[in-house]
Amino acid sequence: MPYPNKKGLNIVQVDVKDVRFPTSLGGHGSDALHTDPNYSCAYVTTTTQNGKQGFGLTFTCGRGTEIVVLAIRSLKRFIIGKNAAEIFSKFSEFWRTITNDSQMRWIGPEKGVAHLAAAAVLNSLWDLWARIENKPLWKLLLDLEPEELVSTIDFRYISDVVTKEEAVQMLKAMQNGREERVNFLETNGYPAYTTQVGWMGYSDELVEELCRKYLDLGFTHFKVKVGRSVEDDLRRATVVRKCIGDEKVLMVDANQAWDVEEAISWMKKLAHLHPLWIEEPTSPDDVLGHAAIAKALKPYGIGVATGEMCANRVMFKQFLQSGGMQYCQIDSARIGGINEILSVYLMAQKLNVKVCPHAGGVGLCEMVQHLQFWDYVCLSGSMEGRLIEYVDQQHEHFTDPCVVEKARYMAPKMAGYSTKFLPGTVEKFAYPNGSEWKRMISEGVFPAPDDAELVNE
Amino acid sequence: MPYPNKKGLNIVQVDVKDVRFPTSLGGHGSDALHTDPNYSCAYVTTTTQNGKQGFGLTFTCGRGTEIVVLAIRSLKRFIIGKNAAEIFSKFSEFWRTITNDSQMRWIGPEKGVAHLAAAAVLNSLWDLWARIENKPLWKLLLDLEPEELVSTIDFRYISDVVTKEEAVQMLKAMQNGREERVNFLETNGYPAYTTQVGWMGYSDELVEELCRKYLDLGFTHFKVKVGRSVEDDLRRATVVRKCIGDEKVLMVDANQAWDVEEAISWMKKLAHLHPLWIEEPTSPDDVLGHAAIAKALKPYGIGVATGEMCANRVMFKQFLQSGGMQYCQIDSARIGGINEILSVYLMAQKLNVKVCPHAGGVGLCEMVQHLQFWDYVCLSGSMEGRLIEYVDQQHEHFTDPCVVEKARYMAPKMAGYSTKFLPGTVEKFAYPNGSEWKRMISEGVFPAPDDAELVNE
Repeated sequence: MPYPNKKGLNIVQVDVKDVRFPTSLGGHGSDALHTDPNYSCAYVTTTTQNGKQGFGLTFTCGRGTEIVVLAIRSLKRFIIGKNAAEIFSKFSEFWRTITNDSQMRWIGPEKGVAHLAAAAVLNSLWDLWARIENKPLWKLLLDLEPEELVSTIDFRYISDVVTKEEAVQMLKAMQNGREERVNFLETNGYPAYTTQVGWMGYSDELVEELCRKYLDLGFTHFKVKVGRSVEDDLRRATVVRKCIGDEKVLMVDANQAWDVEEAISWMKKLAHLHPLWIEEPTSPDDVLGHAAIAKALKPYGIGVATGEMCANRVMFKQFLQSGGMQYCQIDSARIGGINEILSVYLMAQKLNVKVCPHAGGVGLCEMVQHLQFWDYVCLSGSMEGRLIEYVDQQHEHFTDPCVVEKARYMAPKMAGYSTKFLPGTVEKFAYPNGSEWKRMISEGVFPAPDDAELVNE
Repeated sequence: MPYPNKKGLNIVQVDVKDVRFPTSLGGHGSDALHTDPNYSCAYVTTTTQNGKQGFGLTFTCGRGTEIVVLAIRSLKRFIIGKNAAEIFSKFSEFWRTITNDSQMRWIGPEKGVAHLAAAAVLNSLWDLWARIENKPLWKLLLDLEPEELVSTIDFRYISDVVTKEEAVQMLKAMQNGREERVNFLETNGYPAYTTQVGWMGYSDELVEELCRKYLDLGFTHFKVKVGRSVEDDLRRATVVRKCIGDEKVLMVDANQAWDVEEAISWMKKLAHLHPLWIEEPTSPDDVLGHAAIAKALKPYGIGVATGEMCANRVMFKQFLQSGGMQYCQIDSARIGGINEILSVYLMAQKLNVKVCPHAGGVGLCEMVQHLQFWDYVCLSGSMEGRLIEYVDQQHEHFTDPCVVEKARYMAPKMAGYSTKFLPGTVEKFAYPNGSEWKRMISEGVFPAPDDAELVNE
């Protein structure tokens, strides 16, 4: 694959918007630790001299988005004036420039606000690349030769698990049967599971109603939030288990609610409901804690899933090495863009761990489908035991929303990474000056923004 | 110890300044990954209704400080209007409020920009408390009953290593001999080591000159930066070893330059110079990597030191559990203030790892001395194998600079956490509008600030 012609591809603008949706009003997305999220994002538009545009975002939960937006503005100094085609042809070098600036790395490195900002920028650049090539992102990834794909990855700190050379070999070894797999995807899509039935704030009646709805839609895997009280968890998870029957699969998600010992004893009380996995049982930083939990729950047939708040490839490496993660839930907007996510897929494949991407949030379903499609065609070659999370929220704001039919993600066909908002979205939901926020603030539904939330205006 | 009277202690203002020193001009502070740091900080002044003030900071390296400053401004919403005395009496509760807000935690949690911001705020509150009590911070800590001290700590996620109850027991067990230890400290101070002899940018001549200078000052432990090239490292470390002789102690510091295997093979080439420790051999997030390096280097008598970029107590917990850290280098400004640092000291004591605090930077020497003094009197009761890092930079900007005599930190006597700047410092070095920055920018010594660096003006 030749890189695009450089001409006209100098980056002349990187625009960023604080976009928030008032999801806390409905209790959607509530869990043990995130009780009132306003699903939000920092939304980046990168523009080249010849008018090509790429759109990228990182997901946030409301307050604090202003900090990520400023961090993206601070990264502009490393991007404006660079040529996009040159970035793509030396992508890992550029990656290190924006994630490891000799002064800025102190405030990360490669974690938290700084890395969320890098993710949004990188997502916009991958979208730009796919748009220039006029391909959906997953097809762009498919069309990169193994050496080209691998050249986008910074292997620093992970060579003890996978080297560049091994990565190329793994990709080459999977080149047979590609066309069949592409055809299969284009015809059948990729299996999804739903998180929609058991948010923390939902009543039993709503849980039951939603179980029936998603059963009718063809779903076979259902995830329930747990962790606020054993009684409440037992009640809601039992409602789901009864409704879906013993053949279907139940997963539970504690969103970091417990200490290590607490996670083990709590889960033993839910074990009779046969959950496939416990997701985020404790601190997302506790590799050894997850490994201890996984070991203790193995006799009960319960695996450990985590990843949505895993800070970077070095943390993923350790979860994968230690047995602390039986289901690897890569997130498309927390770690350093596709470049770093690819390295996680490679390590997971090497260490025989299945990737089941985290989605929901703003734009996450849209993005992860591309990555998982690539994995199926080019790396793992398998869908066995793998699913993509699905939450039916905020898709209506995108020009190319994900399409889930009969509980399967259907192949995206439009050019890009599916991350472009409809024109009205920013106009309505930019915070705090979008028309919807102005209305809600003036009606007293939400308080006025504070001083810090106004700096990016 | 009764908490201060609430009257007048409502917090009415939290002011924050971006303060940067142009240290990159001299190559001071340069290492393998931080080639041109401008030692900086986000400097917080917290003011109560009755005019009491606390001063706190988090260290940064120049670019990106503006992001931390905004993050502190975003935390104001959780602080303004609270009563300081109430905060102190329920400190762990307040700690969780500012580190785990249900929306903002997504952009951390407890790491990177968000946690640096929390650290600065918490440091200012501890300083405020000590000033209200009219005691140096270490004496305030000494005067807290074990139960009171422990009540400032959030034990979430660390109860598998140390519980609140155990912590109280550990502190009670060390109450004998306190007075002798206080007297010893007040007479003799606490041993320091120097990092001043071997910054990456220094010539052989300068290294030699500095070795002689610090030998004359009574230093017995000398640290050298390594990691850019084996030849260069061998050369500089050999100069130091020759100059200090075999009796004195050499340490080396790679500042995250290597992959795991690389760290092991590189250090074998330096082993004949008998370094006591290799500091930050690889990614600060790689617990298992550090453990592998420590295991491989143990036969050579080389320990592993790390901590200055360790994200939080959960990461420290794992370094301590895994054998990946023989020297625990707590940092006073990266993790969540004294509250969280105390929990690291407790875990280190429980797991028999010596704490040798990271210092240098802006205000770090000033702060860590208080913590290590507390440890000696109240927790470990020992100085054996423990030292505080010392770098002779930026002390002149503080009203109560640390005093190092004959290579020992002498006990601070003034009220507070030694974190208050002299009046002229902010006036001169506030970025970008302090008088020194205005001059340097107008003279072309530094480029003008960009758009993002102006938002906090």
